[in-house]
Amino acid sequence: MTRFECDYLEGAHPAVLEALMQTNAEQTAGYGEDAYCAKARTLIAAQCACPDADVHFFMGGTQVNLTVIAAALRPFEGVLSADTGHINVHETGAVEATGHKVLALPATDGKLSAAQVREAYLAHVEDGTHEHMVRPGMVYLSQPTELGTLYTREELAALRAVTAELGLTLYIDGARLAYALAADAQVDLAFLAAHCDAFTLGGTKCGALFGEALVLPKPERWPHFRYHIKQRGALLAKGRLLGVQFAALMENGRYRALGEAANAQAQLLKATFLAHGIPMLCDTKTNQIFPVLPNTLMHKLAERFSFAHWCKVDTRRTAVRFCTGVTTPKENLDALIAALAILNLPE
Amino acid sequence: MTRFECDYLEGAHPAVLEALMQTNAEQTAGYGEDAYCAKARTLIAAQCACPDADVHFFMGGTQVNLTVIAAALRPFEGVLSADTGHINVHETGAVEATGHKVLALPATDGKLSAAQVREAYLAHVEDGTHEHMVRPGMVYLSQPTELGTLYTREELAALRAVTAELGLTLYIDGARLAYALAADAQVDLAFLAAHCDAFTLGGTKCGALFGEALVLPKPERWPHFRYHIKQRGALLAKGRLLGVQFAALMENGRYRALGEAANAQAQLLKATFLAHGIPMLCDTKTNQIFPVLPNTLMHKLAERFSFAHWCKVDTRRTAVRFCTGVTTPKENLDALIAALAILNLPE
Amino acid sequence: MTRFECDYLEGAHPAVLEALMQTNAEQTAGYGEDAYCAKARTLIAAQCACPDADVHFFMGGTQVNLTVIAAALRPFEGVLSADTGHINVHETGAVEATGHKVLALPATDGKLSAAQVREAYLAHVEDGTHEHMVRPGMVYLSQPTELGTLYTREELAALRAVTAELGLTLYIDGARLAYALAADAQVDLAFLAAHCDAFTLGGTKCGALFGEALVLPKPERWPHFRYHIKQRGALLAKGRLLGVQFAALMENGRYRALGEAANAQAQLLKATFLAHGIPMLCDTKTNQIFPVLPNTLMHKLAERFSFAHWCKVDTRRTAVRFCTGVTTPKENLDALIAALAILNLPE
Amino acid sequence: MTRFECDYLEGAHPAVLEALMQTNAEQTAGYGEDAYCAKARTLIAAQCACPDADVHFFMGGTQVNLTVIAAALRPFEGVLSADTGHINVHETGAVEATGHKVLALPATDGKLSAAQVREAYLAHVEDGTHEHMVRPGMVYLSQPTELGTLYTREELAALRAVTAELGLTLYIDGARLAYALAADAQVDLAFLAAHCDAFTLGGTKCGALFGEALVLPKPERWPHFRYHIKQRGALLAKGRLLGVQFAALMENGRYRALGEAANAQAQLLKATFLAHGIPMLCDTKTNQIFPVLPNTLMHKLAERFSFAHWCKVDTRRTAVRFCTGVTTPKENLDALIAALAILNLPE
Repeated sequence: MTRFECDYLEGAHPAVLEALMQTNAEQTAGYGEDAYCAKARTLIAAQCACPDADVHFFMGGTQVNLTVIAAALRPFEGVLSADTGHINVHETGAVEATGHKVLALPATDGKLSAAQVREAYLAHVEDGTHEHMVRPGMVYLSQPTELGTLYTREELAALRAVTAELGLTLYIDGARLAYALAADAQVDLAFLAAHCDAFTLGGTKCGALFGEALVLPKPERWPHFRYHIKQRGALLAKGRLLGVQFAALMENGRYRALGEAANAQAQLLKATFLAHGIPMLCDTKTNQIFPVLPNTLMHKLAERFSFAHWCKVDTRRTAVRFCTGVTTPKENLDALIAALAILNLPE
Repeated sequence: MTRFECDYLEGAHPAVLEALMQTNAEQTAGYGEDAYCAKARTLIAAQCACPDADVHFFMGGTQVNLTVIAAALRPFEGVLSADTGHINVHETGAVEATGHKVLALPATDGKLSAAQVREAYLAHVEDGTHEHMVRPGMVYLSQPTELGTLYTREELAALRAVTAELGLTLYIDGARLAYALAADAQVDLAFLAAHCDAFTLGGTKCGALFGEALVLPKPERWPHFRYHIKQRGALLAKGRLLGVQFAALMENGRYRALGEAANAQAQLLKATFLAHGIPMLCDTKTNQIFPVLPNTLMHKLAERFSFAHWCKVDTRRTAVRFCTGVTTPKENLDALIAALAILNLPE
Repeated sequence: MTRFECDYLEGAHPAVLEALMQTNAEQTAGYGEDAYCAKARTLIAAQCACPDADVHFFMGGTQVNLTVIAAALRPFEGVLSADTGHINVHETGAVEATGHKVLALPATDGKLSAAQVREAYLAHVEDGTHEHMVRPGMVYLSQPTELGTLYTREELAALRAVTAELGLTLYIDGARLAYALAADAQVDLAFLAAHCDAFTLGGTKCGALFGEALVLPKPERWPHFRYHIKQRGALLAKGRLLGVQFAALMENGRYRALGEAANAQAQLLKATFLAHGIPMLCDTKTNQIFPVLPNTLMHKLAERFSFAHWCKVDTRRTAVRFCTGVTTPKENLDALIAALAILNLPE
Repeated sequence: MTRFECDYLEGAHPAVLEALMQTNAEQTAGYGEDAYCAKARTLIAAQCACPDADVHFFMGGTQVNLTVIAAALRPFEGVLSADTGHINVHETGAVEATGHKVLALPATDGKLSAAQVREAYLAHVEDGTHEHMVRPGMVYLSQPTELGTLYTREELAALRAVTAELGLTLYIDGARLAYALAADAQVDLAFLAAHCDAFTLGGTKCGALFGEALVLPKPERWPHFRYHIKQRGALLAKGRLLGVQFAALMENGRYRALGEAANAQAQLLKATFLAHGIPMLCDTKTNQIFPVLPNTLMHKLAERFSFAHWCKVDTRRTAVRFCTGVTTPKENLDALIAALAILNLPE
């Protein structure tokens, strides 16, 4: 079976693994208070053009999401999210388990708009029985989204403006941020740091063994943040493992470069499907593509390749997801493209 | 600075790191549904003489503790713990954050007795206003304890009997279990599996980069357990990292053997202190020792060696903790012993 | 201002108040362990044809909802609800504050169907990544619904069948149950007790000063339930106040009779609106009606009468809610009907 | 059986019940937004010499405690309490169910000292691994305490000073405040309002059918507080019931006067016990007394009088609690005093 169902199928990028090996025997302080974490923080803050930013490291995406959301909200506040948002669908109610409602809004191509946020907030305020309803306190976005799409500079600026005006925290989940950075140079780390209250740089799906880096551009808004991390079981004892990995990823432009290569693989695959007359569910520039396959073709492909079912489009067709990633072997891609060339394609 | 303050100062044991390197490029399913996790589960269950046991992997100790405790308890139930228990003191209220009270009982040398458990339970039942008080639902032990001490076979059997009689879940935190297994061959994995409802084999403090294995000897008592793991942000995407590490640790008796070597280091260190007239706060057979140092000696030692402050004993003396571990360099131990030989010792 | 915006505008029905006065000086045990609570429990259980039912008293609706839902669910489970359900919209995330997600389904006239429940459950099971999603554990209905509509005998039987088959707890919120019982004699207390796992008889909106009675037809499914009540701050010290009130309401068929009178008032009001050419948002047989008013008429009426805004229907019309209740003064109704007779009505 | 086990054995003081009857038929807005609640708020704020204070009404003591504590604390913060504090012992973990640890300190006569608070806070700060421990965020006191004792002006001033210095919220549970106000005129409402961040005036145990009034002297510290109330199921639909009752209690010095009469009864009873050679567990000036009874006498008395068991003093003697209250019948007291006169008393 050649696998394409997600972007965490292999281990780490060789440079990351090499760094772990080189530093393995050293003694360091625990819990992220070591020199490697300090180095990774400095690298990230510098690339964010935000030297005073706090940078914290987590082991996984659900973990960082639940920690940062619970830290930001008052008990009666909820978080606005696209209905396709990861926190709304695929985290087993982790946010609710911290006491907060996810206020899901219908999304097009996985994205929320500034107008939607304003409307949802005003619906709350205008209702006249405010305290009977959950109060919006945060907006959660994903960049790229769960559908592989991207927010533009203008869209993010509008979301920043409306959240600042209404007093909402803006948090961006960048579990796959390397692919977004590579796909749109306009929305770089400095732009993100200037346009939200918190965002993550994903490691797990972008070349690390595991790990997410959380950037808090204005640390004074997040007092005593390490307590939140520890309380959620997210403070890694050998914290240096995260520092070593992120230092390796962020050096020499590696993070963005790795995303770029994977995007190119995905775009080649997309072009191949399109050339064979297979349409996409939505257009993406990043490492996830969503071809709409005739069910017969889907079953045929599934004999040799794994991919993710996304949704039924009609009785005869299903949208599926193929991912490339930082460590996708070139021969896997070649095998898939070759297979597509000889399959019977839709009439 | 030569470090002895804890047992997670270095990276992984070389055999563990080697296994991660060897498997890095392979593609596997995510979330612990891969062949390495399966192999590690089989190894552990077999060594527990409990082939039907469920084994789940976590990234850290606070994470597994809060997950298993919240999974076991009804909302109004609490967990009985020694007042020195890790969940009561050093997890930032992680258990309370899931809604449950830690019912702390005064402990001698870090241990609870069966009699204490019965008394605490009966005090609840006899009060006559039961529903106004938290109901004990679980007993939490550590093996070895936070003070490095060990429960004997007889003590554990008595605790198993009383918890079974009273309908309490018995959970044993084995963050440092390798050292306990090495120190008392009578309390082996099979004995533990037969005498509690859940226990952990620590990886982080016992040779892994990170990770804890949770053993549930009777899986039917823990339905849908993977939902709990995911909800707490504890389901590692590249789950195979945990499987690979635990498979390496559990093969060929390595886990217990690594503990044995570290215990020997600690016991040598203990003997050295005692030979110099430095008493211990409590006697331990495992990898943690607690010398009671004159403050002048403590400050002198602190110039070259790091160790943990434990508690003030009187105005002139302080109990401190030295740890050895699976990866403690021999030269570090030699340096400390040499230093002790030439220091001015207590009058 | 003559008020119609809700059914809790006045104090208690005179018979309830009289009972409180008559018993005021007596000494009784606290926390619901008195003879009046016992009497009320016996009356309710008998009318439910379920003598073994547990009956617990609460002070308010949000309180009983959050308590019973949190008692029923495991941490990773959620509750299926109509999107218009009170717990989804108007309880400030009280259910989420206990850690559970409300899984909202689109509702017609405020009602869920058995088919919807099955579909939502199967969508979860079929997804193939079950543990990444909240697991449905309960179905929440309101009888009558928030839109004043009613589940029929057949609909409830179908919901009971599907929830039993799938292992879901079925809970019915009867905050306005007196009006439902009066409107459809087929769905009586015995039928409800036989077709769900828990339901409430509302007091606050049905003639009491305050209070809700929770019926648990099979107490063995709800062990230690009083602990839940106390933990949520819902165990009234002078519990007899609830027993006295519910005993007064349940004697001599009073509860249903009071609902009947209020329904008749509401239906007269509905007929008056319809006679003047004002349509209803949805048809109801109970004490809430939802006329769709031209905005001009709405503003005119609002000068003398209070009512609740429900939703905008189009740019010129708004659906509003008028409620009658157990203690609505007849002269208030007469005044409103008279006012409607002389107002300029829609072209 | 003549009852003395608590101070909520009867219904309401006649003046309170009369006020409920007089206002029963009126229509008012719901949820505490009526003229009676406004009047009660104005009365309370005026007596607090704090006209800008926010006053919110709740139905019971556990309810207000859990709401105000959860509103004040950040997720990782806990509340310091005497180990005998109501929140630590008799609320079924209601505070923990909102996610916060109760940090219990050993108390003498039910009281905490400013020195204890400082020491507990500094122990946290000095530990050096702060974020691994719950951070103290609030101090919880009871006035009078659960043992009927009182904080003096000087003690409260010292607690206010230390909490202000350390940034801790100071909350005083006044479930029996009428008795404290009557027993020490120096600690009046104005003094309390000036020396803490939140406190309650108990109604349930001081003459109301039910209800507690929460005073927030500086409302700007408690933004959006009504959301918290609703979320915890504590926003009474017919909120005016609380306004009517508290207006009746606070008029014409009634609240304090009622406390005074009950204190006099308790003090007479205490003097009677002492005259018969029965010592007290601790001295109290309020409505609770704690005689230490020989077990034989205890069993004898229990045939005709109910009282609360408090604790075993030795194998032959038990401390018990007798309460008087706002509505304790004089004949009950006479009967008890007469009974004591003829019983065989301790050798």
